Amino acid sequence: MPKQRAPIRMPRSRTEAFSDGVFAIAATLLVVEVHVPDVHQPGLAGTLAHALREEWPSYAAYAVSFAVIGIMWVNHHATFDRVARVDRALLFLNLLLLGVVAFIPFPTAVLATYLRYGVDADSRTAAVFYSLVMLAAAFAFVLCWSYLGRHQDLLREDVEPHAARVALRRSWVGVAVYVVTIPVALLNPYLALATYAGLALFFVFAERPARDADD
Amino acid sequence: MPKQRAPIRMPRSRTEAFSDGVFAIAATLLVVEVHVPDVHQPGLAGTLAHALREEWPSYAAYAVSFAVIGIMWVNHHATFDRVARVDRALLFLNLLLLGVVAFIPFPTAVLATYLRYGVDADSRTAAVFYSLVMLAAAFAFVLCWSYLGRHQDLLREDVEPHAARVALRRSWVGVAVYVVTIPVALLNPYLALATYAGLALFFVFAERPARDADD
Amino acid sequence: MPKQRAPIRMPRSRTEAFSDGVFAIAATLLVVEVHVPDVHQPGLAGTLAHALREEWPSYAAYAVSFAVIGIMWVNHHATFDRVARVDRALLFLNLLLLGVVAFIPFPTAVLATYLRYGVDADSRTAAVFYSLVMLAAAFAFVLCWSYLGRHQDLLREDVEPHAARVALRRSWVGVAVYVVTIPVALLNPYLALATYAGLALFFVFAERPARDADD
Amino acid sequence: MPKQRAPIRMPRSRTEAFSDGVFAIAATLLVVEVHVPDVHQPGLAGTLAHALREEWPSYAAYAVSFAVIGIMWVNHHATFDRVARVDRALLFLNLLLLGVVAFIPFPTAVLATYLRYGVDADSRTAAVFYSLVMLAAAFAFVLCWSYLGRHQDLLREDVEPHAARVALRRSWVGVAVYVVTIPVALLNPYLALATYAGLALFFVFAERPARDADD
Repeated sequence: MPKQRAPIRMPRSRTEAFSDGVFAIAATLLVVEVHVPDVHQPGLAGTLAHALREEWPSYAAYAVSFAVIGIMWVNHHATFDRVARVDRALLFLNLLLLGVVAFIPFPTAVLATYLRYGVDADSRTAAVFYSLVMLAAAFAFVLCWSYLGRHQDLLREDVEPHAARVALRRSWVGVAVYVVTIPVALLNPYLALATYAGLALFFVFAERPARDADD
Repeated sequence: MPKQRAPIRMPRSRTEAFSDGVFAIAATLLVVEVHVPDVHQPGLAGTLAHALREEWPSYAAYAVSFAVIGIMWVNHHATFDRVARVDRALLFLNLLLLGVVAFIPFPTAVLATYLRYGVDADSRTAAVFYSLVMLAAAFAFVLCWSYLGRHQDLLREDVEPHAARVALRRSWVGVAVYVVTIPVALLNPYLALATYAGLALFFVFAERPARDADD
Repeated sequence: MPKQRAPIRMPRSRTEAFSDGVFAIAATLLVVEVHVPDVHQPGLAGTLAHALREEWPSYAAYAVSFAVIGIMWVNHHATFDRVARVDRALLFLNLLLLGVVAFIPFPTAVLATYLRYGVDADSRTAAVFYSLVMLAAAFAFVLCWSYLGRHQDLLREDVEPHAARVALRRSWVGVAVYVVTIPVALLNPYLALATYAGLALFFVFAERPARDADD
Repeated sequence: MPKQRAPIRMPRSRTEAFSDGVFAIAATLLVVEVHVPDVHQPGLAGTLAHALREEWPSYAAYAVSFAVIGIMWVNHHATFDRVARVDRALLFLNLLLLGVVAFIPFPTAVLATYLRYGVDADSRTAAVFYSLVMLAAAFAFVLCWSYLGRHQDLLREDVEPHAARVALRRSWVGVAVYVVTIPVALLNPYLALATYAGLALFFVFAERPARDADD
């Protein structure tokens, strides 16, 4: 009677509903940090058209973070789709992951703000900070899959034993990828932004073989 | 066994729940950009009643964008109602659409801000910017239906073959309509705002025949 | 076959999910307008304790608007619980209602801001503005029930014919109540705030007979 | 026929969906109060790296409040998991609880702001204010379980009679714990922040026996 000994009665569906809510809100809140330029402010000159073009780092950071949160939502679903029941530890590992995801609007806003000032120490710092938060999110997936690998009774019966190992290995790839973006951020924060965008596009377009491997 | 060969196990229901969340949050976040007038600020004069009346472009932009997001939500539902299963490409086309919808509060705030200053180059820019974002949203629907037209196996079995063609054609009408608002925005941004409102009212009240055609 | 001739395939469940989202977000966004007092700002004096006490209108307005949105959510549920299917007109009447509900954080912030300055023309304006938005929300319920009364085929089969009339009459009571708060707001905005709170408490504690009458 | 005499037809599922929404939004809104440091502002010096480190109270307050809201969500679920039907009083007690939870971003922002200025009267006030709001949330759980204890017919049939007493006693423990944090806050607000974090960690890691007792 594995279902009756469940130590906490949180059904997977309600965990998913709460998680979907956090992912959807975090993605939608990103726009709050894109500010209306005030060209009528004393001391400022130029047209709105110019000011809107100057804000391109905000749009780029918005697009990249929206894509990243969307991809993490897809990954989150792929993870919980294999889970049969949620115990207390998995519940709090999931909250840890959600806490990092919900924080993403902040490093996004920092990156968008400091990319406006060109390549300097501060824009490098902003890009490293962004990389570190992404790293934390990737690591939260590692923690989830590491725990699921050690508690395979939480997984659905039709999930093959090696699936958790494959998923854990792929989570570590996510960590490694964001570790690599740190020296890129130190070199050139614009290149780092392009790298984040490229990683998102790579995941969307090119990851099919890896996905098939463990499906 | 078309369901078992689904390359990604994202059920339509969870895609819809996430999408509903983004639509609902984007619509509700619009109010964050309606600012409380501070008539006690040094240098400002006049009553609150006057200041609240002066803010009419914010209310109008709020109402129009709320209606537009609501209409897009209805369209989104009509689209996914015909989908039997969601593959990876459709998932990311949907994320692209949601990313544009979640961005709408920004051009709305830009339009509301610059409509206060009368017809000038900046208010024209603001209206063109609003038109361009709407155009992007309409085009995301084109991409979804273009993909669905080429992958009819994703559609429900009771959806007739020509339905995707009709829906695609209607999505292009949405694109065309927002292309037409660009010269209107260049002519007079207030007229553009009235046009956006008129388009929303037209969709709500007058679209029945077109809708019946593909139902 | 009343279900097959439904002119739009929006199920009640997805309309409710979207509506629940808007109600929950509007209620939770209220807190964004409660601002952290900055007692370290040059020119300001006093302790944080003093500043937090001075902000009481913000807390009161938060509590009243949260309660009002919660009560409207309960009413909204009671309305849609009787609906068997949602047609296009009801869908857009519902969007109209949601648009007013999602706007509530703005008059709440205006009221909280101007109640700080004592009874003057501006705080009276703020209270009248709050009453007008509540009036608009109450009127949106009238429109919904007026439409449902004229399209009883949208209601569930076990809903008695006079139920729509009773619900419509009760919606008009909501309108009348908020009309009455307008002269109160002109007299004294603090009294108006107390009236809004009293109305919410009355609904919570005293409305049982009216509710039983149409259940 | 206990289900047919239900005085209000709000199903548990829709109450949970609305509550999940408020919890998810309140948790995700916390990030809005973490502000981008503007090191290019005239009069400010130092690097972004320095400014980001200086903001540690914001990150700590974010993490603690996210964990607290997450824990309250788990508790909320554990409460409503035992509820068979929701009557009018429980509906409004739940709204009271949600109203306090949705308010948490404000004391969090106050605490984060004033912890930057070291131990003084204002940072003590900020920590006491935070404790009081947590106390109010804990007390709202007491009200819910006190009501459920007096209306056991609302509980599921398989919930043992003493379960409500155990849950009520545990809710009072939550109140007592936050009462104890008030003198800690008066002593040293940083110690209070560490205490809030410790309480959250204690709940996550150490509460198993208590949980088993009433499961």
